[in-house]
Amino acid sequence: MPNPPPAWVQALSPAEPQGTTLLEQERAKSKVNVDKLGELLHTKEALDQRDRILAVLMSEKVFDKSQNHTLGRTEKIQVALARGKRLQQLKKVHNWTDEDVYVADQLIGEPNPYGLHASMFLVTLREQGTPEQQKLFYERALKYEIIGCYAQTELGHGSNVPSKWWIGSLGRTANHAVVMAQLLIAGKNYGPHPFVVQIRDGETHQPLENVYVGDIGPKFGYNTMDNGFLLFNHVKIPHVNMLARFAQVDQASNKYLRPASPSLVYGTMTWVRANIVLQAGGVLARGVTIATRYCAIRRQFQDRDAEPGAGENPVLNYKMVQIRLLPLLAAMYALHFTGRGMMRLYQENQERMKAASGADQEKRGAGPEQLRAGSDLLADLHATSCGLKALASTTAGEGLEVCRRACGGHGYSNYSGIGPWYSDYLPTLTWEGDNYMLTQQVARYLLKSARAVLAGKGAQNDTSRILQAYLARRDKGASFDILENDGDIVDAFAWRTAHLTFEVLKYRDVEKRSWNSLLVNFWRLSTAHSQYMVVKNFYEAVTSPELTSTLDGETAGLLRKLFRLYALHTLEREASEFFSSSAVTVRQIGLTQASAVMKLLDEIRPHAVRLVDAWKIPDWQMDSSLGRYDGDVYPDLFRRASQENPVNDLVFDPYPWNDNVLKNTPLKSKL
Amino acid sequence: MPNPPPAWVQALSPAEPQGTTLLEQERAKSKVNVDKLGELLHTKEALDQRDRILAVLMSEKVFDKSQNHTLGRTEKIQVALARGKRLQQLKKVHNWTDEDVYVADQLIGEPNPYGLHASMFLVTLREQGTPEQQKLFYERALKYEIIGCYAQTELGHGSNVPSKWWIGSLGRTANHAVVMAQLLIAGKNYGPHPFVVQIRDGETHQPLENVYVGDIGPKFGYNTMDNGFLLFNHVKIPHVNMLARFAQVDQASNKYLRPASPSLVYGTMTWVRANIVLQAGGVLARGVTIATRYCAIRRQFQDRDAEPGAGENPVLNYKMVQIRLLPLLAAMYALHFTGRGMMRLYQENQERMKAASGADQEKRGAGPEQLRAGSDLLADLHATSCGLKALASTTAGEGLEVCRRACGGHGYSNYSGIGPWYSDYLPTLTWEGDNYMLTQQVARYLLKSARAVLAGKGAQNDTSRILQAYLARRDKGASFDILENDGDIVDAFAWRTAHLTFEVLKYRDVEKRSWNSLLVNFWRLSTAHSQYMVVKNFYEAVTSPELTSTLDGETAGLLRKLFRLYALHTLEREASEFFSSSAVTVRQIGLTQASAVMKLLDEIRPHAVRLVDAWKIPDWQMDSSLGRYDGDVYPDLFRRASQENPVNDLVFDPYPWNDNVLKNTPLKSKL
Repeated sequence: MPNPPPAWVQALSPAEPQGTTLLEQERAKSKVNVDKLGELLHTKEALDQRDRILAVLMSEKVFDKSQNHTLGRTEKIQVALARGKRLQQLKKVHNWTDEDVYVADQLIGEPNPYGLHASMFLVTLREQGTPEQQKLFYERALKYEIIGCYAQTELGHGSNVPSKWWIGSLGRTANHAVVMAQLLIAGKNYGPHPFVVQIRDGETHQPLENVYVGDIGPKFGYNTMDNGFLLFNHVKIPHVNMLARFAQVDQASNKYLRPASPSLVYGTMTWVRANIVLQAGGVLARGVTIATRYCAIRRQFQDRDAEPGAGENPVLNYKMVQIRLLPLLAAMYALHFTGRGMMRLYQENQERMKAASGADQEKRGAGPEQLRAGSDLLADLHATSCGLKALASTTAGEGLEVCRRACGGHGYSNYSGIGPWYSDYLPTLTWEGDNYMLTQQVARYLLKSARAVLAGKGAQNDTSRILQAYLARRDKGASFDILENDGDIVDAFAWRTAHLTFEVLKYRDVEKRSWNSLLVNFWRLSTAHSQYMVVKNFYEAVTSPELTSTLDGETAGLLRKLFRLYALHTLEREASEFFSSSAVTVRQIGLTQASAVMKLLDEIRPHAVRLVDAWKIPDWQMDSSLGRYDGDVYPDLFRRASQENPVNDLVFDPYPWNDNVLKNTPLKSKL
Repeated sequence: MPNPPPAWVQALSPAEPQGTTLLEQERAKSKVNVDKLGELLHTKEALDQRDRILAVLMSEKVFDKSQNHTLGRTEKIQVALARGKRLQQLKKVHNWTDEDVYVADQLIGEPNPYGLHASMFLVTLREQGTPEQQKLFYERALKYEIIGCYAQTELGHGSNVPSKWWIGSLGRTANHAVVMAQLLIAGKNYGPHPFVVQIRDGETHQPLENVYVGDIGPKFGYNTMDNGFLLFNHVKIPHVNMLARFAQVDQASNKYLRPASPSLVYGTMTWVRANIVLQAGGVLARGVTIATRYCAIRRQFQDRDAEPGAGENPVLNYKMVQIRLLPLLAAMYALHFTGRGMMRLYQENQERMKAASGADQEKRGAGPEQLRAGSDLLADLHATSCGLKALASTTAGEGLEVCRRACGGHGYSNYSGIGPWYSDYLPTLTWEGDNYMLTQQVARYLLKSARAVLAGKGAQNDTSRILQAYLARRDKGASFDILENDGDIVDAFAWRTAHLTFEVLKYRDVEKRSWNSLLVNFWRLSTAHSQYMVVKNFYEAVTSPELTSTLDGETAGLLRKLFRLYALHTLEREASEFFSSSAVTVRQIGLTQASAVMKLLDEIRPHAVRLVDAWKIPDWQMDSSLGRYDGDVYPDLFRRASQENPVNDLVFDPYPWNDNVLKNTPLKSKL
C-alpha cells in the first residue's frame, strides 16, 4: 500500500464544524427513541445475534472489505470463495445455525459462490427428494461433500445450443446440479422435471466427459458469484437421480406417475416474494441511511433568504433534497411493515391450510367454509405478492440511485457505499418474475375478482371487499377527506384501484380489446393496487396496538407522519389517476402538493438522522465513508484514498512517446 | 484464455429462427432510408472520417476491448494510459487533427488519463494565458512535454484538510496543474484565480516537495481515469505562473488589475452545456440501438390472443416493451435535434456579438438595437441551456437503465454493452452544474423575464414571447388541438410553462414565500420549460425544409411521428400539470393515453430497427453481444463467455475444509 501522508499533512487540523459535531447536533434535536424503535423493527434478539456474529467477522482478515472495489473479476471471485469457506469453518467452530450464517452473509454483503448451493440446491433436494434421495444427495450436500446449483434458466431462443445460462454457483464452484429438463418417455414429453446431475469430478474438479461448463463472464454487479453455463452431450444419469417426491417414472413399467400437491410450490413462490418485499425495506434503508447522514453534514451555499454571514446550509435543509430523501425514508419503513404484514399473513394461512387439510381437517372439524376462506386468502396473497414484489424492488433499486445522486459528487465514489450495493441489488428487479411481467398476473387476478364480484360471487378477501365497496358507493361519489383523515387516505387508494379495475374490465370484456393493447393498463393497475397494499399495511402498522403501546407518543407520532408522507407523496405523483377516478378533487391535489407534503417535510426533517439510526445498520456492513455513524466523513475518505488505494502504488511514465506505462516497468504481458 | 469448446459443442447447429434472420426480416419490413437519415444526422463527412479512424483502431491490439470488464482498477488504468499513448503516437503517424483524436476517443468509448490534459488544461492555458504564458506552458503542453490537469473542486466542508478532490488526470498522470486558488494580496482576498503549478518531477515523476497528491480510489464508473487529490504546503510559484489574460497582479506595484470581458466564460459554459445536450442524444442512442435490436430477436411467450401454435412473440411486439423503448427512440432524436439547434443559435450569436462589438461594430454599422437583440438571445440561451443540460442528461442516464432492463436478464451481463456505458455516463448528471441545482437558475431567469413582461419590458427572445402570448390569451383560454395539430402541441407546452411561471411568480412576489420553500416548484418549472424547448426544437427540425427536402416522404413522416410520440408521451406523463394549467382538457389527456400514443407505437414499431440503424453506431464502438448489427446475439454471448473470460482459467477447490481456493494454488498473497 502507498506511502503514508507526510508529516505536514498529518499535522493539519480539521476545519470546523466537523461531521462528528454536526451529527451530534442533529441527534440532539430529536427525541426519537432509537433503541425502542430499532427493537420494534428487528427485535432485540435479532440485534443481539447480529452483534455477536459481527464481532467474529470483524476479527477475521479475509472479511476485510477495503479492496472489494479495486479487485478484478478473477481476484474478486477467489476472495469470495475464500470468504465462503471461512464462513463454513466458522459455522463449525462457533456452532452457528443456518440463520446465523445467513446473518453473516448479510453483514458481508456480497453474493457468494456457495450461494445457490446453500439455498436452491439444498431446498430442492430437501423438498423434492424422496427419503432415499435425501440420504443420497441432501445429507451429503448439507456437509458440503457435494456442492450444487439449480439449473433452470436457458440462454434464449435461436441460441446455437440449448444451454443453461445464468446459473449461480455453476460457473466454477458446483460439482453437481439440479437440472430442470424435459422428461421424455417413449417419445412423449411430460414437461420439465428436476434431475440431479454430477457435472465435475469430485477429486480433480474437472468437468466430466460430455459436460461443457463455465462462467458466463463479467456482469454489472454480482461479480463475486460464478453464474455459469452448462451443456450436455447425451449424458446418462441413474434412475434414482430424478427427484421423485412429486413425480416419478416407475422403473419396471416405464410409466409416469402423477405429481402430488403442486400447491406447495405456489406457496413457496409467495413466500419468496414476501421476503423480497421485506428485504427491499432494508436494502433501501442502507442507501437512505448513508444519504441522510451525509446530507446533514454536507453544506452548500447560503439560504438565499438568509441574513448575510449566516454560513452555509447543510443540504438536508433544502426542500429539493428533502423531497427526494424523506419520501424514501418513509418508503423504507412502509416496505418493511408491508413485508412483515405479508409474512404474518402467509404463516397464519399456512397454519390454517395445514389444519384444514387431510387428516387434520377431520380431527379439528374444519368445514368447507374455513377451507374456502383459507384458499381465498392464499389466492389473494399470491396475486398481491406479485405486484408487491415488483413495486418494492423497483422502489428500492431506483431509490438507491436517488440516494447516490443526493450525495452529490462523492456519491459516485465507491467509498460512498451505494454504487456497488445498487449494482448487486438490480437483478432482484428481474428475477423471481420480471417486474413488468408480474403486473399481468396481478391484473388477471383483479379482473377475475371483479367478474366474480359483479356476479355476486365475491371471495372472502380484501380485494373483493374493496371492489364491492367501490360498487356500493360509486354513484354517490367518493368524498374522502385525505387531508384530515388518515383512514380516508387508505380508502382513496382502494377507490382508485377499484376504479381502474372496472375500467380495464370494460376494455377487455365489453370492448373486447386485445390483451396486448392492455398491457400498459395492466401495469398501471398493478402499480395502483400495490401502492394501495403498501399504504394499507403501513397504516395498519402505525395504528396497531403493538406499535403504539411499545413506542412513546413522539416516536409513534413520527411514524404516523412517515405514513402520511409516503401516502400523500405517492398520491401527488400519481395525481392524474386519483383525479380521473374521482378519488380526490383537483383542489385536494393542489393542497396536498402545495402544503400538506411540504409541512410533513418540515416536521420530519429534525428527526431524519435518528429515524435512520433506528435501523441500526452497522458501519462495517455499510462500508461507507459518507454514511458513518460518527459523521467523520472527510477524514475517512482521505484515509481510504491515501492508504487503501493500490492505484497509488503505480508510478506512471506520463509521456506518450515512451511505451512503458510505468516507470521502468513494461506493461504487464496480459494487457 | 480457457480451453475451446469440445468438438461436440462446436458441431451443434443453431436453432431457427436465428437473430440474423429475424433482423433481416425486420429490415425488410420498413423502407426508412437509413443512409440518407444517417447523413442528415451526422453528415457524410463525419461518417467517412469515423470509418477511416475506426479501421486504424481496430487493427491495433492495445484497443482490443475484450478484457475491459474483467480487469481490476490498477490494470484498467494502465491499459487506459497505454491507449492514450498509442493514440498520440497514431496522431503523429497518420497526421490526425484534434477532431480525429476526439472521434477516436468516442470510438474507444472510455475516459482516458490524458482526458483533462487534452481538454481543460490546454483550453485554460490557451484562453487565459498571455502570449508569454502560452509560449511557456501551452506550447509545451501541446507537445505533451508537460502533462496537466485542472484543479478546482474541493473535498468538502469540515474536511481535515482543504484539499482539491476529484481532479481528472491528477491522480497519477499529470506533472502540472492549473489550480484555482484564492488570490490574496497584502491580506486582501480577490477570489479564485488560475495558477499553473508544477506538482511532479519531470524526470522521476515523483511529487515535488510539499506536494501531496494521489488517486482518490475506485468509483461507480470512470475507473480508467485517475481522478486525484492534491494538497500543498506553502508551495511557492513564480509570478508568471498566474494566468494573466483576464486578471493580473502588477509585479512592481503589487496592485491587482481588473479582469476583462468575463462574458467570454459565460459563453463557454453555454457551449459546454449545448454540447452535453447534443451528446445526450448519442449516449442514449447507444442503449436504444442495443435494446431495440435485441428486443426484436428475443422471443418470449405467445400473444395471449393468438391462435394456438402461433409461436413465441419477439418482445418488441409487446406494448409494455414498446412504451418503454419507443419513446426513448423518439427522445434520442429529440435531444439530438435540440442540441443541434442550440449549437446553431450559439454560433450565430457569437458571430453577431463579435460583429456588433468594438471596431467591427462601426465598420458594419450595427446599432444598439442589434446589440440588445444579441444579448437578449444570449441570456435566453444561457438560461435555457442550464435546464436543457439537466433534462437531457437525466433523460439519457435514466434512459440507459430502462434500455438495460428492457433486455431482460442478459441486460445485466456486461456483454450487453449497456451497464458500464451507463456507469461511465452518470457523472454528467452531476458535473457542469448538478441537475437539480441548475433548475434554480432557469427559474430565476423565468421569473425575471415574467417581471419584465408584466412591466411591459419584455426582451426580444422566445421566453418573453411565450409569456406575452400566454398573458394575451389567458382569459380566453387555451383550446389547443393537440390531437390533430402538431403546432398546437408545441403551444400547449409553452402555455404550461408560462402558466407555471406566473404561478410561481405569485408565490414569490405576492405571497412572499421563501426561496427554499419554492425549490420544488422551481425544479418543476425548469423541467416544464426544458420539455417545451425540446418539443419546440424537435418540431422545428422535423418541419424544416432541410429535413423535408433531404428525406423521402416516408422517412420524414416517421420522424414527424417520433416528434408526436415524444411530445404526447411526455404530456401524458406530466398530465396533471397540463390539466391544472388548462393547457389541455381531461378528455384530451384520456384520448392521448388511450389512443393517440398507442396508435403511434403501432405505426413506429415496424420501423424501429431501421430507425436505430440510421444512427450508424459501429459494432466495435458499442461492444455489445445483444446489439450486434447482424443479430448474431447468442453465438456471440457464448463465444465471449467461453473464449474471452479469464475466470474460466481458474480451477476451484470447492470444499470448505480445504483452505486453498484454487486446486494446488494458495490464495494469492494480496488477497
